[in-house]
Amino acid sequence: MDAMKSENASTLENAMQLMIQTFHKYSGNEGDKYTLSRVELKEMLTQELGNYLGNAQDKDAVEKVMGDLDSNNDGEVDFTEFIILVGALTVACNDFFLEYHGKDEKNAQKE
Amino acid sequence: MDAMKSENASTLENAMQLMIQTFHKYSGNEGDKYTLSRVELKEMLTQELGNYLGNAQDKDAVEKVMGDLDSNNDGEVDFTEFIILVGALTVACNDFFLEYHGKDEKNAQKE
Repeated sequence: MDAMKSENASTLENAMQLMIQTFHKYSGNEGDKYTLSRVELKEMLTQELGNYLGNAQDKDAVEKVMGDLDSNNDGEVDFTEFIILVGALTVACNDFFLEYHGKDEKNAQKE
Repeated sequence: MDAMKSENASTLENAMQLMIQTFHKYSGNEGDKYTLSRVELKEMLTQELGNYLGNAQDKDAVEKVMGDLDSNNDGEVDFTEFIILVGALTVACNDFFLEYHGKDEKNAQKE
């Protein structure tokens, strides 16, 4: 269990712990406490990813994310499906910053 | 860029930021600064995941992780491959804690 103690955890282990904590913060609110219902998914998207998914308040957006993630079509998002969402967003975010950074470097070389 | 400012970031956004920071901390040390070489991967595994991967010091273990992750066989782990590793470990970690927690609940009901 030592790996989950924050005081000894590395930066990456802290990140993993934060993802686990975030999922269970929302998944425990109603129904199956180990999956996100539509209501819980919407709450998680608006509270945690509002900066990325500006229009998550839109019911269509929640339905779209649910449709994309819910690979077994049970109307619930499980932890693995949640991690796939977070992973895909993190890769997109990294690509964005690399592109931004790359453009900075090219501009710097021109000057 | 507001999404990456820690002071405004949600718990989940902080986790995403920590994963991006961790990758670039190691990927920038040698060669292509946007991928992990074998040496950089070993450094990352031992520094960041020592609690999970106890035997990452073992050269065979590093070779195995590299072989599993390096889907395009270029001897480098890119950011997407890194996120797949972290995601898989996080799912495994969550499963472990759910099982542990489930056992606790069953024991509590018996008493």
